Amino acid sequence: MNALLLSNSRGPDGAYLVHALDAIRALTPGGGRQTTEALFVPFAGVTMSWDEYAAKVAAALAPANVSLRSVHTFASAAEAQAALAQTQLIVVGGGNTFQLLAQCRTRGLLDPIREAVKGGARYLGWSAGANLACPTICTTNDMPIVDPKGFAALDLIGFQINPHYTNALPAGHQGETRNQRIEEYLVANPHASVIGLPEGDWLRVEHDAVTLHGPHDAVRFVHGAAPQPLAPGASLS
Amino acid sequence: MNALLLSNSRGPDGAYLVHALDAIRALTPGGGRQTTEALFVPFAGVTMSWDEYAAKVAAALAPANVSLRSVHTFASAAEAQAALAQTQLIVVGGGNTFQLLAQCRTRGLLDPIREAVKGGARYLGWSAGANLACPTICTTNDMPIVDPKGFAALDLIGFQINPHYTNALPAGHQGETRNQRIEEYLVANPHASVIGLPEGDWLRVEHDAVTLHGPHDAVRFVHGAAPQPLAPGASLS
Repeated sequence: MNALLLSNSRGPDGAYLVHALDAIRALTPGGGRQTTEALFVPFAGVTMSWDEYAAKVAAALAPANVSLRSVHTFASAAEAQAALAQTQLIVVGGGNTFQLLAQCRTRGLLDPIREAVKGGARYLGWSAGANLACPTICTTNDMPIVDPKGFAALDLIGFQINPHYTNALPAGHQGETRNQRIEEYLVANPHASVIGLPEGDWLRVEHDAVTLHGPHDAVRFVHGAAPQPLAPGASLS
Repeated sequence: MNALLLSNSRGPDGAYLVHALDAIRALTPGGGRQTTEALFVPFAGVTMSWDEYAAKVAAALAPANVSLRSVHTFASAAEAQAALAQTQLIVVGGGNTFQLLAQCRTRGLLDPIREAVKGGARYLGWSAGANLACPTICTTNDMPIVDPKGFAALDLIGFQINPHYTNALPAGHQGETRNQRIEEYLVANPHASVIGLPEGDWLRVEHDAVTLHGPHDAVRFVHGAAPQPLAPGASLS
């Protein structure tokens, strides 16, 4: 497997996908020097149209020589499924994880995406798109705006990601901290593990090797142990 | 119907349920001057035992002359269901909304709770317990740690509550604001309406009348309109 799983889409300066552009180039078959034919999964987008979302991502990935078509533009689910079997790169954007999973399930895209990635297609996902690569979407931060009819996801990696990871709360707020939420998840799912991935960081997955990249420490959570910091460069294998 | 739906359990000083104690007394049949027999639904609790949770809530409600038994202490689901049909007050505590709904569904408690409340039992809920009273749990802030096998909830009121409402984010954080999350919900569910209920506030439901109480303005959200502030004392009917 060959994947890049980003916590989020923007650098601290607000620039869209620029912070990970070198890593995205390195993910593509030609290292960004030749055109990569890619398919985009736009379904996490809720408050912008999928056409608009695809255009925005296509522009952001053009400097890496990625040529993007969105899966929502195929005339039928069967055509989208067939295209996934042929593509070099699958790009799954962020937004609402529940809607992303619901649409992928309804359209019959989960198995084709999983099989394509296991067959050699690269996978690039951020935020909801990183959660989709996990065994389940149970460690999303998103609001459950639609029922995905089951939380099982692509299961490309053997652990959960919590994107946009921070343990901070707005001043005076009494809701659960992120660490408390993840602790609750691990009480209910004691055999799972979770990587809290701060904004700006990403995971590079090559075969069975997973390494942390970016400016910040991540945090590994397992049931019954204190959260464990992971420095950039750390191997999660 | 006769219900009290609190955003959260603690006042700004951290005291547990004290901020709403007068309102809880007013909810009980005798205004707090005689004992109210109540059943507690502890299933939102994840990181403390249900015994511990029930003891904590029993102590907090003793000053309102509420005598509390937790539904998890009955020998069978049938006994818990029968007790719900007889009780004066149903108390549903906060915690994780997904686990609360999953347990209530598995144990066959949703219909008995709904029927009891429609038959005259009072309902007191906070945080997850307030969300359970809504048509669905789709406006919870919680992490989806377990699959509740459907998001439909008690549907005691005709609108959604977002508890712990705030639009603030930790400094520098790029995840969605609460308003953006609720906007996404309304795009996916355009006929719904949502009350963002800040910490310290609650809704009093008497028959079809709903009024806002507490120190802060709440916010009403409907699809296609700007968020609308609601002052304490406002009627939501």
